[in-house]
Amino acid sequence: MDFIIRKGEIQDAQAILDLIHELAVFEKLPKEVEITIDDLRIDGFSKTPKFETFVAEDKEGYVFGMALFYERYSTWKGTVIHLEDLMVTQNKRGIGAGKALYTAVLNYAYERNLKRVCWEVLDWNSNAIAFYESTGAVIDKGWYVVKMKEKNLKEFIENK
Amino acid sequence: MDFIIRKGEIQDAQAILDLIHELAVFEKLPKEVEITIDDLRIDGFSKTPKFETFVAEDKEGYVFGMALFYERYSTWKGTVIHLEDLMVTQNKRGIGAGKALYTAVLNYAYERNLKRVCWEVLDWNSNAIAFYESTGAVIDKGWYVVKMKEKNLKEFIENK
Repeated sequence: MDFIIRKGEIQDAQAILDLIHELAVFEKLPKEVEITIDDLRIDGFSKTPKFETFVAEDKEGYVFGMALFYERYSTWKGTVIHLEDLMVTQNKRGIGAGKALYTAVLNYAYERNLKRVCWEVLDWNSNAIAFYESTGAVIDKGWYVVKMKEKNLKEFIENK
Repeated sequence: MDFIIRKGEIQDAQAILDLIHELAVFEKLPKEVEITIDDLRIDGFSKTPKFETFVAEDKEGYVFGMALFYERYSTWKGTVIHLEDLMVTQNKRGIGAGKALYTAVLNYAYERNLKRVCWEVLDWNSNAIAFYESTGAVIDKGWYVVKMKEKNLKEFIENK
């Protein structure tokens, strides 16, 4: 392979942020990204990190892909892993880095005897859906995602 | 009101587990619950809890409702709250406890200046969907929930 997969470190924060922005553009929601480089450094690389990452790095030391994940808690299964973002930059696709990052996250859960890894996929992203299904993951269409966004949260609480 | 809302404590673990089971029966998936009372005690009420709860308690000290939630990490919004379970036992519905528990979780996020509270709802649970929408929450049908379950995780990793 022409790349390695390793745990992300604080010096990768800018590369991770660049990939977050590129993913949001792909998802057609670029204006949704409010997070900053300092947020990522503090939230991901302090004593009690809120997420972990694997990154894909090429021979020149360029970080071109990442998987960002964290623990959630299922009242059915206990601790589970949520894969928040999986992203490989456009000109590095097709060399297996996405699958390698995905496998690293699944392996992380497997080694800890966790009973589930979960994530969300856009309904029009048929390539991703086909890939996930090919690995044994299940697209669970019986559930809707619900969001109380910042503006509505403020309105609800201030008028309750 | 004939009840109070307070933070859940370790002595509420059995009541919380009973509500988890009752909710799974309502969701028509009772066999999915693998968690035990010891899991809840350790995971929720140790030094580094994996979740928090609010409970509804009546004048006789009976805990008849609960909301279970935890932090997640959005690469768009930073720290957000995920509402995993919201449940009021069958014979205590209609007195406002569900809304009071829901409001307590939203208020928790509001007080911390968090930008989102999210959760999932079964697509056939039209009463819940109507309630959530009445409070300003958005049912985001553009995303599918994906799950790699224990058996498939094991197969994928062991055959990779």
